[in-house]
Amino acid sequence: MKEVEVCLTPDLIELYDLRGKVVVIVDVLRATSCITTALAHGINSIKPVATLAECKDLQNQGYVAAAERGGLKVEGFDLGNSPFNYMNEELADADIAMTTTNGTIAVSKSMEARQVIIGSFLNLTSVVNYLKRQSYDVLIHCAGWKGKVNMEDSLFAGAVVQELDGSCEISTDAPRMVQILYSQGKENMYAFLENSSHVNRLKKLGLNKDIEFCLQRDKYNVIPVLKNMHLIKMGLNDMLI
Amino acid sequence: MKEVEVCLTPDLIELYDLRGKVVVIVDVLRATSCITTALAHGINSIKPVATLAECKDLQNQGYVAAAERGGLKVEGFDLGNSPFNYMNEELADADIAMTTTNGTIAVSKSMEARQVIIGSFLNLTSVVNYLKRQSYDVLIHCAGWKGKVNMEDSLFAGAVVQELDGSCEISTDAPRMVQILYSQGKENMYAFLENSSHVNRLKKLGLNKDIEFCLQRDKYNVIPVLKNMHLIKMGLNDMLI
Repeated sequence: MKEVEVCLTPDLIELYDLRGKVVVIVDVLRATSCITTALAHGINSIKPVATLAECKDLQNQGYVAAAERGGLKVEGFDLGNSPFNYMNEELADADIAMTTTNGTIAVSKSMEARQVIIGSFLNLTSVVNYLKRQSYDVLIHCAGWKGKVNMEDSLFAGAVVQELDGSCEISTDAPRMVQILYSQGKENMYAFLENSSHVNRLKKLGLNKDIEFCLQRDKYNVIPVLKNMHLIKMGLNDMLI
Repeated sequence: MKEVEVCLTPDLIELYDLRGKVVVIVDVLRATSCITTALAHGINSIKPVATLAECKDLQNQGYVAAAERGGLKVEGFDLGNSPFNYMNEELADADIAMTTTNGTIAVSKSMEARQVIIGSFLNLTSVVNYLKRQSYDVLIHCAGWKGKVNMEDSLFAGAVVQELDGSCEISTDAPRMVQILYSQGKENMYAFLENSSHVNRLKKLGLNKDIEFCLQRDKYNVIPVLKNMHLIKMGLNDMLI
């Protein structure tokens, strides 16, 4: 039986062997929710980059450029990190370059994996169904907050572990820990996250609507997958890795 | 109000500023339970060292030498990592050198702290009462398993956070996460840990008795404290840091 592992922050990723694994990147508030929303709304591709400088270079090359640091859109860029930024019809077929505080770092640290996909509550069931169908070991890679663990990504990891129960083995403690968190939080995730650090940070910035949006389950059925350094909608070919 | 933080594994300790903090080292199964037991049974001091070579050197200098790797006593050393090894009357007043898979690494990575103390379920209330009385910020440093997080140390961290509720502020998510784990596990910790990795590892080695012993609350009232690179019983002077 294949295994599911959970890495609670990119600062621990060196402890895991990513080769031959499907890695699910998780940054629920808000990068992976934005990426899922963008591809569901017809955006062609998103190129995640780690630094503002790389993002600026790509903007100069014709990409639409999205940049967030500390919850806020960075001046001089076209888009921020709110899912509502990515529902714009004018962005249909656009290629976007994106850098965020945590999520894009998790992507750049996952390059050795067999396949990198993007998970959020917005596409939870699609991600889970795909993970069940494919045959590789699974590693859920939480983006965390500046290297530390966070509650919302751990909660999502717990949801995936819970849904994979019976299809995947568990041999380490992190998956069990997040599964317990999810069992406690699943009935009312908004209330469960009420005291968590990043929810408070976003609330102070007036972003309650973003939080509520990102905590909706299964609004979309797209699975973003990394191909040639761009995140695109998963097609049939990508499902047959 | 002072703050309580939780570092879930020594591999994340670089993210925390230890200066001016009281660090509680946690390796419930079994290093910090052994250290607590040893000092409660009259052993004079324990010098934690990271490597087998250092431990051997100290053995040659006259220390009683304790060494564990992967759950087992290492050949050529005097003691292993079972608390029952440290109840021997012949060890009264002895100075012990100790190296274990995880716990002694957590100590060696905490040297910048204002004070380093040792926590286990065996001395939970004494540790909590001390943390309440003193005035510095608190960091609970879990030893984990080879860099990854583990359930039993997280559970203990959750117990301390729970007991400090009202006396300490929380501004990050790790303390909240372990507090939730403890709320789920506290009624029957042995059953709660039944599927966890290290409990299974110890059970396979026939060490159920050690697990049961280490999960007893408040068997001892000693607080081991690091002074001049040796862990000794905390005295009145050390309480007035």
